[in-house]
Amino acid sequence: MAKDAYLVGLIGSGIGPSLSPALHEREADRQGLRYLYRLIDIDALGVPPEAVGDLVRAARDLGFDGLNITHPCKQLVIEHLDALSPQAEALGAVNTVVFEPQGRTVGHNTDVTGFAASFARGLPDAPLREIVQLGAGGAGAAVAHATLTLGAERVTVVDALPERAAALAASLNRHFGAGRAASATPDRLAHLLTGADGLVHATPTGMAAHPGLPLPADLLHPGLWVAEVVYRPLETELLRTARAAGCATLDGGGMAVFQAADAFRLFTGREPDTDHMLTDIAELAGAERSAGRAV
Amino acid sequence: MAKDAYLVGLIGSGIGPSLSPALHEREADRQGLRYLYRLIDIDALGVPPEAVGDLVRAARDLGFDGLNITHPCKQLVIEHLDALSPQAEALGAVNTVVFEPQGRTVGHNTDVTGFAASFARGLPDAPLREIVQLGAGGAGAAVAHATLTLGAERVTVVDALPERAAALAASLNRHFGAGRAASATPDRLAHLLTGADGLVHATPTGMAAHPGLPLPADLLHPGLWVAEVVYRPLETELLRTARAAGCATLDGGGMAVFQAADAFRLFTGREPDTDHMLTDIAELAGAERSAGRAV
Repeated sequence: MAKDAYLVGLIGSGIGPSLSPALHEREADRQGLRYLYRLIDIDALGVPPEAVGDLVRAARDLGFDGLNITHPCKQLVIEHLDALSPQAEALGAVNTVVFEPQGRTVGHNTDVTGFAASFARGLPDAPLREIVQLGAGGAGAAVAHATLTLGAERVTVVDALPERAAALAASLNRHFGAGRAASATPDRLAHLLTGADGLVHATPTGMAAHPGLPLPADLLHPGLWVAEVVYRPLETELLRTARAAGCATLDGGGMAVFQAADAFRLFTGREPDTDHMLTDIAELAGAERSAGRAV
Repeated sequence: MAKDAYLVGLIGSGIGPSLSPALHEREADRQGLRYLYRLIDIDALGVPPEAVGDLVRAARDLGFDGLNITHPCKQLVIEHLDALSPQAEALGAVNTVVFEPQGRTVGHNTDVTGFAASFARGLPDAPLREIVQLGAGGAGAAVAHATLTLGAERVTVVDALPERAAALAASLNRHFGAGRAASATPDRLAHLLTGADGLVHATPTGMAAHPGLPLPADLLHPGLWVAEVVYRPLETELLRTARAAGCATLDGGGMAVFQAADAFRLFTGREPDTDHMLTDIAELAGAERSAGRAV
């Protein structure tokens, strides 16, 4: 019997270290599928982000089943698609493209659904009255959509760039209803966190290349849950500090896994085993950290 | 451990029924490789044969390791390549393109090497003084190059289109030396075969869509070996008739397998198990014939 075969890839900039190929291919191997995940790096190709349209058309012509899309192409790809999922439409960003057989090219956003699934699994009883979110970039927009979709009453977006925070808050209010989002500058964090239920962290601080804490440690208090978007390393300084301060925490591995799992389901129509995938990412991100320490 | 992964494909017209995906993927599975073989059909895409250059460039950009090329693109692809193997250069036709890592795009012809390998294996002691070849199309050009490379003293090419036969003979004489090839019209077959050692059949007659014999049965005699290029079905009316007449025979499955095996070796650098692949093609082509009978 011929195995069911799937060809997918990731288009973006500087994606060489992506864990997506391993996450997808390990799950596919467990399911007995023939599955290949290729990295299509616009830097390596020497093409501008605007080339994403040509790359998507070429991938469809050459027999790809779908693509993940990442920075800096998540918005640029939209004009080249036939339809968008509700999440992608609301967010104005696509991280997953599905080539329907003999049909449409459809954009989805599994960053939104992935963060929501990870949050619902990892912090199922977390209060969602007042959330403070650090970071208003692409990841920040996705996770704010996710928490508001999960029922958060109000998300206050804090960013070092006040215009970016204000623009995201305005967009969230348009989509979810006036008053659901606000923006603030970092100097307001102490005040905001005093009365908040949770903190969502969506800046690059804490990644291997940007070590450190994204806010003063003494702003963390036991009444606060802390959800992290960074997953390389899985154990960031923010998560360590938050746990020491008595906070319930959620690492970024869950979002990475559930966005991949949601894309896998869209590509194949098959149900991924997310428990196995969570074990995979701990091993993949852990091996990476160990390798880094050994150098 | 991540498995070594290979992405390859076939560009051509009307290639839906190709056995190449199964031949390559079965061998790769035995070797524990992650290997995906995609069909890129210019008819299905609605593009002309001249689009082969764009498709080859796109495949390289999207992470393909190599391509097979078939009708009607084997000549058209040449101007888009950086270098040619000696066989491809001599024949002026490419059926295999290898994307060297960070390097050149190189064209090969494994129809030539594949027929030569099949012949050397299946008819190792066959005399090669005088060969008559039916068919001067693309397959005919490839197998004439193969038999002359194997040491045939003289190949006489017979084709219903006299100009095509004469052009192939002239090209063979330029490449292998004057007097190694000649052309003739079909009415000369009886005379030619009387003194010949072997007959190579390289027309479509005998394929499922073109049943029948390519020459009168009474021209076959026990002093003649008969080599077939058609492999769907493996057992053609020509081979049945030739065996009944006492001829040693070689079916077209060997050429199909060895051209695939040579391409597999070029794509992966690994040695294919051609005995297993010969079993595969008997099963694949056999299953096809059985299915056809059941209809």
